[in-house]
Amino acid sequence: MKENEQRENTNTARVTYPPVSVIGLGMMGSALARTFLKEGHQTTVWNRTPGKADALMKQGAKVASTVNEAIAASPIVVICVLDYGALHEILEEAGELLVGRAIVNLTNGTPAQARRTAAWVTHRGAEYLDGGIMAVPQMIGTSGALVLYSGSEKVFQTYQPTLKGIGGVNYLGEDPGLAPLYDLALLSAMYGMFGGFFHAVAMIRSEQIKAETFTSLVVPWLQAMSGSLPLMAQAVDAENHQTDVSSLSINQTAFSNFIEVCGELGISNELMIPIQGLINRGVAEGYGADGLSRIVELIRNPVSV
Amino acid sequence: MKENEQRENTNTARVTYPPVSVIGLGMMGSALARTFLKEGHQTTVWNRTPGKADALMKQGAKVASTVNEAIAASPIVVICVLDYGALHEILEEAGELLVGRAIVNLTNGTPAQARRTAAWVTHRGAEYLDGGIMAVPQMIGTSGALVLYSGSEKVFQTYQPTLKGIGGVNYLGEDPGLAPLYDLALLSAMYGMFGGFFHAVAMIRSEQIKAETFTSLVVPWLQAMSGSLPLMAQAVDAENHQTDVSSLSINQTAFSNFIEVCGELGISNELMIPIQGLINRGVAEGYGADGLSRIVELIRNPVSV
Ligand SMILES: NC(=O)c1ccc[n+]([C@@H]2O[C@H](COP(=O)([O-])OP(=O)(O)OC[C@H]3O[C@@H](n4cnc5c(N)ncnc54)[C@H](OP(=O)(O)O)[C@@H]3O)[C@@H](O)[C@H]2O)c1
Ligand SMILES: NC(=O)c1ccc[n+]([C@@H]2O[C@H](COP(=O)([O-])OP(=O)(O)OC[C@H]3O[C@@H](n4cnc5c(N)ncnc54)[C@H](OP(=O)(O)O)[C@@H]3O)[C@@H](O)[C@H]2O)c1
Repeated sequence: MKENEQRENTNTARVTYPPVSVIGLGMMGSALARTFLKEGHQTTVWNRTPGKADALMKQGAKVASTVNEAIAASPIVVICVLDYGALHEILEEAGELLVGRAIVNLTNGTPAQARRTAAWVTHRGAEYLDGGIMAVPQMIGTSGALVLYSGSEKVFQTYQPTLKGIGGVNYLGEDPGLAPLYDLALLSAMYGMFGGFFHAVAMIRSEQIKAETFTSLVVPWLQAMSGSLPLMAQAVDAENHQTDVSSLSINQTAFSNFIEVCGELGISNELMIPIQGLINRGVAEGYGADGLSRIVELIRNPVSV
Repeated sequence: MKENEQRENTNTARVTYPPVSVIGLGMMGSALARTFLKEGHQTTVWNRTPGKADALMKQGAKVASTVNEAIAASPIVVICVLDYGALHEILEEAGELLVGRAIVNLTNGTPAQARRTAAWVTHRGAEYLDGGIMAVPQMIGTSGALVLYSGSEKVFQTYQPTLKGIGGVNYLGEDPGLAPLYDLALLSAMYGMFGGFFHAVAMIRSEQIKAETFTSLVVPWLQAMSGSLPLMAQAVDAENHQTDVSSLSINQTAFSNFIEVCGELGISNELMIPIQGLINRGVAEGYGADGLSRIVELIRNPVSV
């Protein structure tokens, strides 16, 4: 469809599909470069270990023999390498070549790393957009892939058609630390859900029941329960955790059942004990009548050990 | 609508809406009795502390002055009290009166407790259906309330129209332990999801960002990620945790980022450390190339301390 669009408007094609350089051809960088090629971008690639560019060359990519050649080739340079250490090794080589370019960094890191790198890049006359890819390489180029962006809004707006080729986009604001912050927050929410699911499946399996019979129940159940997340977020923002539904005290009672059952089933409680610990701490600190959302405050104010 | 149905078919009303007795008028028992009354059942109630029946009496409930009077009043007796200790105190009073009745126990307990109680009740000539209510009292009588049943299929089939008044029904099988097992498994999945969400919101809030701006992202994100749960369940059943997407080793690397960021933000890692611990243990035991579903086996086979 994009290809048709391009054919019909050949005179605007160059504006909509600018040349793109991709630095780093690991699993993710290769998927990004492949997608840019498919979308019709003139795509220049570079990787520290040269062999990884071979397949992309056959698909039409220009292979740069140096980082600087890659940076010089396009107004927008997408970098996706292992970590910020690798990122800085690469950028420090570029020097004057950075001036006027849009650096889109899709390397995972921390908010502080993103902010420091944004300052460094801006100081050298380039513009910086940070991105957190919420997808595996197999999903790149589909609507299932979500990428969170923060940093230069100008870069985001200018190159939005290009960025939309990767997947869904969400611009969070000028602070370049926002994308990595939200990225890591979403991942921790995912790990929590997975952890709860693994514990649940361990319970089910320990009674020789197929895990599959459980998924038809647990998926709609979690979906239904996720309906209470916005309400809990409101409670957190309002700093008012009052509830008439499910207090920490009620949950404290329910938890002894879990612990007993897991004992009976011979499985580990290691993922449930810390949740129980926070509930117990909330009750002990006098918040027994509060809802579960109180736990956010307890995590934000750890007891010193 | 049900009331109209009943008016139109007065001669079948007694078959569809048998007399029901409700024992235990705490928050949940009261909601159950209220719903049966609304649905058009002749409803007899009993509670250890008598005052709790007053409101229901005004709504048309018959108030029994003894447990035995309540049991004698209906072919189906729904019991919802604090725990199995309370349940047995009540049932032991009933003696011969139990013969031929359907005992539907909606008191929370463990699979072992449900199995023992089923044997005890059956031995006394009654039939036993266990139920796990996956809802708060406010949801009873709506389609949002789900109740899991296990035990006597005959009771479940005979009284299905009555049970559907409470909410959605799901019959799991003849083993009375299944409902409490699935109930607790679903709750642990929910606690995991909530825990991950609380950790994520704590991250977001520690940077002074409103939690509400995060929920519009996290709810669809968790929904999308729950799409991988059926695949992980299949891996567990097949005892084949091979993956080409997200191995334990890759996740191990990602986790050091979390821990670093949470350090920077000054929040507690207590809900993430145990997940990291399981990932690390998986890699250490030689399963680095396996997917996250391997964690189910690790939980089922705790390392002895
Ligand atoms: N894979 C995923 O599912 C996924 C999902 C979301 C985000 N991410 C993020 O995307 C980034 C890349 O991940 P990936 O999966 O593509 O990793 P990968 O397959 O391990 O690739 C790592 C890339 O970084 C390069 N690199 C490492 N050290 C370097 C250095 N000192 N100088 C220059 N290049 C260096 C590697 O080059 P060589 O070929 O020369 O080693 C390779 O191109 C990471 O930050 C990751 O967290 C990945
Ligand atoms: N509330 C929920 O959100 C919810 C959700 C799902 C499942 N459940 C389960 O439903 C059951 C009842 O919960 P609830 O919320 O209704 O609790 P509740 O409001 O605390 O009521 C407890 C009930 O148990 C009775 N009871 C306690 N000990 C007794 C004894 N020794 N003999 C006779 N009666 C006794 C109480 O009678 P008195 O009035 O005389 O004290 C009261 O009727 C529990 O197993 C709970 O886990 C509750």
